[in-house]
Amino acid sequence: MKTTHSLLAAALLAAVAFTSTIARAADPLPSWNDGAAKKSIITFVEKVTRAGSPDFVPIPERIATFDNDGTLWCEQPFPVQAFFVFDRVKTLAPQHPEWKTQEPFASVLKGDYKNALSSDRAILELFMATHAGMTTDEFEKIVRDWIATAKNPKTGRLFTEMTYQPMLELLAYLRANGFKTFIVSGGGIEFMRPWADQVYGIPPEQVVGSSITTKFEMRDGKAVLLRLPKLNFNDDKEGKAIALNQHIGRRPIMAFGNSTGDKEMLEYAQGGSGARFELLVLHDDAAREYAYGPARGLPDVKLGAFTQPLYDQAKQFGWTVVSMKHDWKQIFAFEK
Amino acid sequence: MKTTHSLLAAALLAAVAFTSTIARAADPLPSWNDGAAKKSIITFVEKVTRAGSPDFVPIPERIATFDNDGTLWCEQPFPVQAFFVFDRVKTLAPQHPEWKTQEPFASVLKGDYKNALSSDRAILELFMATHAGMTTDEFEKIVRDWIATAKNPKTGRLFTEMTYQPMLELLAYLRANGFKTFIVSGGGIEFMRPWADQVYGIPPEQVVGSSITTKFEMRDGKAVLLRLPKLNFNDDKEGKAIALNQHIGRRPIMAFGNSTGDKEMLEYAQGGSGARFELLVLHDDAAREYAYGPARGLPDVKLGAFTQPLYDQAKQFGWTVVSMKHDWKQIFAFEK
Repeated sequence: MKTTHSLLAAALLAAVAFTSTIARAADPLPSWNDGAAKKSIITFVEKVTRAGSPDFVPIPERIATFDNDGTLWCEQPFPVQAFFVFDRVKTLAPQHPEWKTQEPFASVLKGDYKNALSSDRAILELFMATHAGMTTDEFEKIVRDWIATAKNPKTGRLFTEMTYQPMLELLAYLRANGFKTFIVSGGGIEFMRPWADQVYGIPPEQVVGSSITTKFEMRDGKAVLLRLPKLNFNDDKEGKAIALNQHIGRRPIMAFGNSTGDKEMLEYAQGGSGARFELLVLHDDAAREYAYGPARGLPDVKLGAFTQPLYDQAKQFGWTVVSMKHDWKQIFAFEK
Repeated sequence: MKTTHSLLAAALLAAVAFTSTIARAADPLPSWNDGAAKKSIITFVEKVTRAGSPDFVPIPERIATFDNDGTLWCEQPFPVQAFFVFDRVKTLAPQHPEWKTQEPFASVLKGDYKNALSSDRAILELFMATHAGMTTDEFEKIVRDWIATAKNPKTGRLFTEMTYQPMLELLAYLRANGFKTFIVSGGGIEFMRPWADQVYGIPPEQVVGSSITTKFEMRDGKAVLLRLPKLNFNDDKEGKAIALNQHIGRRPIMAFGNSTGDKEMLEYAQGGSGARFELLVLHDDAAREYAYGPARGLPDVKLGAFTQPLYDQAKQFGWTVVSMKHDWKQIFAFEK
């Protein structure tokens, strides 16, 4: 019996040693440089998941919400959905000969995208002309087909490859720790859902975004929803806090963004009781990605604005600010 | 070695016998009488969950949606949320001396509930006066406190005990088979969320309902949402199909209701590809619960209407109709 016990003890010791080696070896965020940002994330996750910790949060309350454009994937030189709009305008142009001279369509057809997106009214008009007039099922197929081949004109990479590797690791790390991850984006809810599961591991019911109005109809005895050219919900700024309540019904305990459009989401997350974590991604790497917002000392820009006042608020409110240049070892998912 | 093999074989045989005994013994729906309704549910669940079945549905697509009032719990003599309104009116009456003579409040204070709910306008007025003017956090506490003690005046039972035992078993059975269960109710989304997890095992993010408008505000440096006396979304009829798309982004493969308010939800579920299942609860047990709708040969009623045309459509569309009288061995959760 002595021998059996000794063997068992040796096996157990070996197993323990092996397990702790794995624990040390397995950095859950390998694309993050060691530093304050990475440390703040891991410290938070450990304190809310450790049984008996004064900051422990039960699994059902571990809600983490992420902005999409500029937070999970690249939003330059234009947000991805704008490229979808441009391609749809080109596809639909033969049915609209008047677009050749009619703004903002004429600018799109000439490739002057900056001019096409120069006002809120023009942006809305472009979206309604390209996102409405079909059923939700038809629109889903249009998006699926487009995203399968659409590429960023600057890098020649699929848009879905231009997701941020450190954020993909963060999503996986949080889910491995019992978090439910949501997208809460100013982008179209039905533009993101068809691919968010495959790209981010986030199912349709955990994607929240802006939407247009839909209308119920029976077609050939089958129920469909027709997409109308009318804004239903603008999931931006105050809208993000309202959508968090409407779709999730709990305040997230972690919230991630990169612009003034995310400010109220982070404030709403922070307004809950118990431990909370907020983070903003700062685009300060002109060499590997883009530098915009306070990193360039620029004034507020139309899309994806990380302003100086937001930066100041982040410092004041204790939000983590991630420097893409210094905190991220690798930026894009395709850089493998 | 012969002995070892025999022992092993005997142990395996015993294990197999034991397992199949458990399988036979464990009826997942013990409060359902054997019959067509129960059989249709089990047949469907088995065919969509069996690997290799031509009707197999992957786990993420196993979405089941349930109406609440009259489908998961009793909605008579009035829907539970109406009793909440009545109690709130009584609580707030000292601050509103004018309510003593002003309709519909005067009828509520006199206990003439039927008269108080006699028009859509009156119902809306009562809801806005009792559901708005506080933050979402404050409202959640008001609901939590109320539901903890509020009782059905006819039975003297807590409203939360007047849930249907067969439906609680069905929710658990579906979840054990990889389904994600949602409530999609005409009732208030923020009226249901505070207790749906405890009573039905459905977390806030899987509760969909009608809502009022909210407004983002910073109060003492803390983000809150203020509830305004303005309807945001009516989750009824066509609204249910629209909400399924908005909140879930997939068509449910199973949908459960009991009234004309659920018709479009069932049609929308059925409109998807692959195997689909729809069910209506028929209230035909005047002795153990209530008999209303086609069971009484009555015309359409204001609340909780299961009309004759809906009954005819159910037969035509192949929807399962559950007779509470014949299909349910036990009705309420408290009858144990």
